[in-house]
Formats: sequence, C-alpha cells, structure tokens
Amino acid sequence: MIKLKYDKQGLIPAIVQDYKTGKVLMLAYMNEAALKKTLKTGKMHFFSRSRKKIWLKGETSGHHQKVREVFFDCDADTLLFKVEQKGGACHMGYRSCFYRKLTGGGRSSRIVAKKIFDPKKIYRKNR
Amino acid sequence: MIKLKYDKQGLIPAIVQDYKTGKVLMLAYMNEAALKKTLKTGKMHFFSRSRKKIWLKGETSGHHQKVREVFFDCDADTLLFKVEQKGGACHMGYRSCFYRKLTGGGRSSRIVAKKIFDPKKIYRKNR
Repeated sequence: MIKLKYDKQGLIPAIVQDYKTGKVLMLAYMNEAALKKTLKTGKMHFFSRSRKKIWLKGETSGHHQKVREVFFDCDADTLLFKVEQKGGACHMGYRSCFYRKLTGGGRSSRIVAKKIFDPKKIYRKNR
Repeated sequence: MIKLKYDKQGLIPAIVQDYKTGKVLMLAYMNEAALKKTLKTGKMHFFSRSRKKIWLKGETSGHHQKVREVFFDCDADTLLFKVEQKGGACHMGYRSCFYRKLTGGGRSSRIVAKKIFDPKKIYRKNR
C-alpha cells in the first residue's frame, strides 16, 4: 500500500464524486482497513467516527458506490474517489449530501436539490 | 452565521471545486474566522494546521480562488466551495492537488496531470 498520512485517530478524509457528472456527493472518513476493503471489493467502505466501526456505504439502503478511480492529493492526506452512485448518497434522501447552499453571506441557507427517495421508507427496517 | 459543526480543534474541512469544470481542486480546513473572512472578501481563506494561522489562498502565488457558491452537507460538518481558480490550486504546480492516481490496487501511483506552472519560480521569493 502506498504511504498516506492518516490523522491522530488513524483517519483520512475521502471525498466522493460522481464520475460521470462531477457532482460532489459526500465526504466521509476511512482508516487503513476501510481503504483496503474499498480497494479489494470495489465498493466504498468508511470508518464511522460515532459507531467506531467500518461500514459499507449502502449496507442498509442498497445505495452502494462502485469505485471507478482513486486519487490522492499532494500532501497525501486526502483521498478523492470517483464512483458510480446507486440511488442517493445522502441519508436525507438527496443525491448529494451537499443539498443546501449558504445564502445571505452565511446567515441563512436554502435547499437547492430535490429528494430522490424517501429516507423513512429506505431506512425504516433498521432504525 | 448558520450553525456548523467544527471539530475539537475548531476546524471544518472545505472541499474546493472548479465551478466550471467540476474538477475537485483541493481540500483544506477552515476555522470560523477563516470562513467569515472568505464570505466577506469572496476569496478563499483557510486555517493552516501547521502554521496555526489563517492564510489567503494565493497570497504568495497570486493563485486566488474566487468564491462562486457555497454548500454544506447534511451533518453540517463539511463545506463545499465552487470557485473560479486563478492559475493552479496546487503548490506543486498542478491545476488540482489530486494529480496522482492510485494504481495496482493501492500498491502504486501514477501522475495523471501536467504541470501548469513552475513552483520554483512562483514560490521562490518567499521560501
């Protein structure tokens, strides 16, 4: 494995981008094991900082992310994944987690995307 | 200012994307003061974790980033800026910091971009 810089918690941020549209879908964190699992399976795995465990993106929703290309930055402390996103990346029902725009110089915000699924239906079973 | 979730060091990651091409240019960190300065001036400012101070992107190189749109994610713990990039985002001379691609299942890497400026010339005066 090439040498990457993980933080004190052993994590590295991973930006996930739709390989076709260029839309930035989400940012989450990986430890080295999550990265290895991602590279081995071709499906995005992250490390949950709250649950302290590796999770497969889409394990509940079925909204997997298939890896197409992986890049890393000049400081080797950030990863960029280009993926095929099945369904929506966001647990709130949106294609991208970045569905809100800052307005009014940062004093307010506005939803700028449409929901593509109903999170209550998708996540009902396990929550 | 709308409520964002900063980490224990008071920082939030900021993804910077070219507003025209969709290319992800870099990831850096902001504290609240850097965000306010960015929103006020319309030019990207970050907080340097090594130098422990706010810096203006382009202050040495002239390669400023003009803010076009700002988004934040579902957890309000990541920012996404769409910008007009003057010159290159990367201090290594590339348009984007993500100029290397992981190959061989993570065992190797390859440079997949061309330098657009000579960093030795650009940064000579101040380094």
